[in-house]
Amino acid sequence: MGSRWLKLTVAYDGGAYAGWQVQPDVPTVQGTVEAAWHEITQETLRVTAAGRTDAGVHALGQVVGLATESRLPTADVARGLNAVLPGDVAVVRVEEAGEGFHATHDAVAKHYCYRIHTGRTPDVFNRHWTWHCPHALDAAAMHRAGQALVGRHDFSSFESAGSERPSPVRTITELTVTRGTDVGESQRDSPLAVSERLPCALTERVTIDVTGDGFLYNMVRAIVGTLVEVGRGKRDVSWPAEVLAACDRRRAGQTVPPHGLFLMRVDY
Amino acid sequence: MGSRWLKLTVAYDGGAYAGWQVQPDVPTVQGTVEAAWHEITQETLRVTAAGRTDAGVHALGQVVGLATESRLPTADVARGLNAVLPGDVAVVRVEEAGEGFHATHDAVAKHYCYRIHTGRTPDVFNRHWTWHCPHALDAAAMHRAGQALVGRHDFSSFESAGSERPSPVRTITELTVTRGTDVGESQRDSPLAVSERLPCALTERVTIDVTGDGFLYNMVRAIVGTLVEVGRGKRDVSWPAEVLAACDRRRAGQTVPPHGLFLMRVDY
Repeated sequence: MGSRWLKLTVAYDGGAYAGWQVQPDVPTVQGTVEAAWHEITQETLRVTAAGRTDAGVHALGQVVGLATESRLPTADVARGLNAVLPGDVAVVRVEEAGEGFHATHDAVAKHYCYRIHTGRTPDVFNRHWTWHCPHALDAAAMHRAGQALVGRHDFSSFESAGSERPSPVRTITELTVTRGTDVGESQRDSPLAVSERLPCALTERVTIDVTGDGFLYNMVRAIVGTLVEVGRGKRDVSWPAEVLAACDRRRAGQTVPPHGLFLMRVDY
Repeated sequence: MGSRWLKLTVAYDGGAYAGWQVQPDVPTVQGTVEAAWHEITQETLRVTAAGRTDAGVHALGQVVGLATESRLPTADVARGLNAVLPGDVAVVRVEEAGEGFHATHDAVAKHYCYRIHTGRTPDVFNRHWTWHCPHALDAAAMHRAGQALVGRHDFSSFESAGSERPSPVRTITELTVTRGTDVGESQRDSPLAVSERLPCALTERVTIDVTGDGFLYNMVRAIVGTLVEVGRGKRDVSWPAEVLAACDRRRAGQTVPPHGLFLMRVDY
């Protein structure tokens, strides 16, 4: 352990990675960041992260913590890392953190955003960062349905098998579903806003923003898949509440693809 | 020749292509569109295009013309082509065109847009669609300097060798240089607007919009490279006018990389 703690804010296009967490023989974002750290400092270390994003999931504001012996000024750390990182990973901020800072344990809230393109015409410049679901979606109905998930609940119905966690109880503090033309928080902040000149315009974008104290394995993507059933009119607005109450994964909708999902921000 | 003319508006990410025009043994956008056409109609034909975009250049509004025997309704043409085209090419509109429509010859104006990211932090989600030039650029000075190019001129100074054209005279009707926070036409319409949450925010984006009746080989990219010299303070605001008057390619700035350039719109 080093005697100095740093907090890094990292953005990445997850398309080429088997997720955040280091695994043997596959490229991971964690492995990429640790290799870059070694390259600029010669230190071999393990970094911590706020969220272990899955294969193909992106981040605008992943938070990474590390303990180092390096005395490199924060601006030089950012510049140095960006000089050696590949183009799909960037360190957007480096800050001194308090002693013992742990990006995973110290996080109090995480904000995820999921983007859906509902138009018939493929959206060329967003294809890697938006799920193409070419069906009319009733965003207002999805929003109403989603409010049943806000609060402290057992989210077992929205958890994929294979995860390890002490409890399936989490708190969602906010969930909003917006159509692109309703310029909500996620639209203003989205990394890529569609051209108004393209027929696949913002009216064909639906965005789901979820903030909570933590999320189970694939939870956001299972919630989105469940709300999409409502948005397509296949299920009633009251259905997600029933799914939640059932505490049974077989009751929820599909787990939507990873490439529409972004870890937007982590609060400490 | 068929008895029916169609006008297709096509968007593409040019990153994987050796440009628009068909060439042996390399992927081209034209070849891709013609193969898709054959797949849905069994017709083998040559299509025309408004602009023969170079390797790596993108389009939001390339216009493609073709003459066909097919009686397929326009909506089915769009749907059919998009079903067989790869994800980096999309047909965004299909319209009936007048007899003899030729996308190249009938075009009266083309609008190109070039995007520069000037921030130090790499812009992960725009890296394929924005040139990273991590230097402070004086957009206002670039805009003033660029006004000397507006009008009907011999643009030999901004033409790369290897092109064939009867005359180097072209007319630029409008040239604007905007910083991202000045929400001009190109910003509102850009396919990807940077997240305000990223430090590489819109304040670090400079966009050059050029409209004209036609452009010589690499002309937009040489104009941008010349204006960047002014923006960086290496050359005076009056310099691009001198370059233009010299009619000598060696006088202009560098030809900037293709991946920041978009063919936005073509007028007929």
